[in-house]
Amino acid sequence: MHCIIKLLLFLPQAAAASLESEDNESIGKYGARRKGLPEYNLDDVSKHGTMQDRVWVSYRHGVYDITDFIAEHPGGDKILMGAGGSVEPFWTLYAVHKNDHVLDMFEKYRIGNLAADDVGASVKNMSDPYGNEPRRHIALKPSSKKPFNAEPPLALLVDSLITPNELFYVRNHLPVPEVDASTYELEVCDEELQKEKVFTLKDLKKYPKHTVTATIMCAGNRRSEMTQVKPVKGLSWGQAAIGNATWSGARLCDVLRDLGITDGKTDALHIQFEGLDTDPAHMPYGASIPIEKALDPHGDVILAYEMNGEPIPRDHGYPIRVIVPGVVGARNVKWLGRIVVSKDESDSHWQQNDYKGFAPSVDWDTVDFKKSPAIQELPVISAICEPLEGQTVGVKNGKVNVKGYAWSGGGRKIVRVDVSSDGGKNWQAADVLECDGARHPQAWGWSIWKAEIPVPKSKLEAQLCAKAVDSQYNTQPENFENIWNLRGVLANAYHRVNIKLAR
Amino acid sequence: MHCIIKLLLFLPQAAAASLESEDNESIGKYGARRKGLPEYNLDDVSKHGTMQDRVWVSYRHGVYDITDFIAEHPGGDKILMGAGGSVEPFWTLYAVHKNDHVLDMFEKYRIGNLAADDVGASVKNMSDPYGNEPRRHIALKPSSKKPFNAEPPLALLVDSLITPNELFYVRNHLPVPEVDASTYELEVCDEELQKEKVFTLKDLKKYPKHTVTATIMCAGNRRSEMTQVKPVKGLSWGQAAIGNATWSGARLCDVLRDLGITDGKTDALHIQFEGLDTDPAHMPYGASIPIEKALDPHGDVILAYEMNGEPIPRDHGYPIRVIVPGVVGARNVKWLGRIVVSKDESDSHWQQNDYKGFAPSVDWDTVDFKKSPAIQELPVISAICEPLEGQTVGVKNGKVNVKGYAWSGGGRKIVRVDVSSDGGKNWQAADVLECDGARHPQAWGWSIWKAEIPVPKSKLEAQLCAKAVDSQYNTQPENFENIWNLRGVLANAYHRVNIKLAR
Repeated sequence: MHCIIKLLLFLPQAAAASLESEDNESIGKYGARRKGLPEYNLDDVSKHGTMQDRVWVSYRHGVYDITDFIAEHPGGDKILMGAGGSVEPFWTLYAVHKNDHVLDMFEKYRIGNLAADDVGASVKNMSDPYGNEPRRHIALKPSSKKPFNAEPPLALLVDSLITPNELFYVRNHLPVPEVDASTYELEVCDEELQKEKVFTLKDLKKYPKHTVTATIMCAGNRRSEMTQVKPVKGLSWGQAAIGNATWSGARLCDVLRDLGITDGKTDALHIQFEGLDTDPAHMPYGASIPIEKALDPHGDVILAYEMNGEPIPRDHGYPIRVIVPGVVGARNVKWLGRIVVSKDESDSHWQQNDYKGFAPSVDWDTVDFKKSPAIQELPVISAICEPLEGQTVGVKNGKVNVKGYAWSGGGRKIVRVDVSSDGGKNWQAADVLECDGARHPQAWGWSIWKAEIPVPKSKLEAQLCAKAVDSQYNTQPENFENIWNLRGVLANAYHRVNIKLAR
Repeated sequence: MHCIIKLLLFLPQAAAASLESEDNESIGKYGARRKGLPEYNLDDVSKHGTMQDRVWVSYRHGVYDITDFIAEHPGGDKILMGAGGSVEPFWTLYAVHKNDHVLDMFEKYRIGNLAADDVGASVKNMSDPYGNEPRRHIALKPSSKKPFNAEPPLALLVDSLITPNELFYVRNHLPVPEVDASTYELEVCDEELQKEKVFTLKDLKKYPKHTVTATIMCAGNRRSEMTQVKPVKGLSWGQAAIGNATWSGARLCDVLRDLGITDGKTDALHIQFEGLDTDPAHMPYGASIPIEKALDPHGDVILAYEMNGEPIPRDHGYPIRVIVPGVVGARNVKWLGRIVVSKDESDSHWQQNDYKGFAPSVDWDTVDFKKSPAIQELPVISAICEPLEGQTVGVKNGKVNVKGYAWSGGGRKIVRVDVSSDGGKNWQAADVLECDGARHPQAWGWSIWKAEIPVPKSKLEAQLCAKAVDSQYNTQPENFENIWNLRGVLANAYHRVNIKLAR
């Protein structure tokens, strides 16, 4: 049985701290260390992820065995999704848990304390370049462990407009660097003017704090579907290498202004970014964006130090990451160490020879990476997150409920999502679109959509499809055949989900 | 025989005047009035458009019978395209004609003078609201005459990056107003600030002259293809309701600044435009754009008084038309009379109940125009302009030559065009892309592409397809079925052209 159970499951440390500062202050007393209970670490908790092994979860300093509660859980079978880990990211999604009634009941299942060292701890192993990685939530499904790349379960993704930090997909290219915020320095230099300035974290925090809600997506999101046409190299991402968060920091255009770099006063064409993450030859991860995006005050490029109100977690670029709204994740460089204002693009592998699109006929023998521009803004995309492929779905009044996300790069807003239950023969517009209030061309965040759609009569199977339309009235291609490319990027064909119908 | 012959054919008055000011001043002597020759008017000329009727053309003050020259024409069968009209727009495309050698030879075919009144003349008929329309070039193919709507022959469209004024598609909603530039006034008002200012043409010309090359396209371009899936209401446009011109005028953001309307200093959300063209109830044509576009200095919205270096022709908005680069033609209001800065969109029929997109399932019984946003930026599109549907094409070394345009709204640049000769099974990237130098997101002009593409061996027919990819990596949908909509707009599926192969 494929158990998908969302509720009652966990958030690591930073978010726990914030819980205590919320309006309902009484919740701070729950999950406190309790004398006389045995101590467990997160590894112990993670061994209890199924009904057979009994289901353990952690919450702040507490460890709980919730096996006997599962059948009674009002949120249904979503509760098992975080089994063996912290409930806290799930409680960010399902805020109903944060009240005395729920927490009183929850505390009855308490079996132990979580080892103090394990609260947000990382396990260092200095002989392994990946020996100092942050601990990740057990619900993230890795597509590679070194470097760490993982996405959350699809069914969780659209339960909230904002993706909790711990459930946000992780796309690392190299080991996560250990950066001390108190000694952190960001070097900013202009190649032409031969100017250079160094900023501490404190310096960056002196700039007006700018907040944007922006979706970040990996260029390889949904690659697993494209690879079915013809295999491609790359991580086999599902549909969840995307997330929507609220980011805060200094605007890059404000910082550049202090070096005299403003619109019309520079011949530079690109802004290069270098991460503090390095390969074995000590070469950093790098990328660049066109200068127009960086200098546009409405481009909202920020040197972010907060993600959803918390310091940016280590996996997402602590202490500073550049957020380039509307632009592919690969240019949103994490652990930012250096910014170079230049006439040239970044010469990094990832800018020059990786994140690019090609015609379907181009293969590894004929590819010329110079012929294609580096991916910046991403095209319009959507996915069905409920129901999942192969799931059996109840039919009510001849209809099924469908739910998903839709997003477009470049600040384009989603204006419509069309949904079909017969493989694309008939379409109807989804009738609920949840999104933040930003207008085109600054609509950086995604939309969550819902539809109740009629299914073909007397059939026991159906193919659901979704396609989105953005405020430039661009839409998605029908199939992967004609957009197939050797890097398996830009996989934005209709999302098709085959389901079984329970009548 | 379907004769398509481009060369040696004619331009009306404004362009003729400019010819005389060109480097090669001697060409001014050609096409002058010559004593002792019979006088003809343009109607006479237009009666001679086929080999059977003999082929006449006009050039400045001259009328020519070129029937006996056609077989010798170096430019091949394109010469007949302007038969019965002026050669001047064609000579804008094919500048090789503007030299003494060609004009000497051309003058030998002189048979008469063009009636002085007919040089750019309009024929007034005050009892008909359409009785004072400008004379149009005979090569424009009308899809409706009152109001006048017409497109040029497709094969001409991609012979030049810049479309000559006389061959630029015309999309009028109402009769063309007669506007006297010397008394022209543009009223600009802000509903909230209750401010109003009136500008003469001279006032507008005092602002810095701003020039942009921008493609303008009708939302209904390529409707004739969509209507084959299921009929839609609207003019049956081919693929040529699009053109690329260089426009000059005052920037709207500069004009608005003088009313105190700048970024961050207004609560208005829209800029409304009203034309001087009115319906029988004296209601003007109207449209609006979001204020973000109008106030962005890089949005390049201009109150244009020049088109390709000439005063804007009457059919294109004389004396002032707003150019909103990257945005659907319908918002590029012609004969601009009034600008209103407002919290509301234009309430005109064309903004509220016409140029909008809907899901394929929506029909005239179920449509709710309020559910869909007015089309602003247009999606990525392309078309094959050579060869034409049904044409027989010579195969050289197993390949055929294909040529077309590609464009995307919102300032997105075309980064690749993929071409197929087997209906979309195999694709190759076109290898020539001609465009102006503008960068994303200010790439307002189109790209002309060429490809030499292998055709299936030993077959006598082939289906060519083209699809473009823009700098947001958006691409086109494969077919019209899934983007069909009751207004027949946004018809940007792959362009498919069936040809016969001559081996």
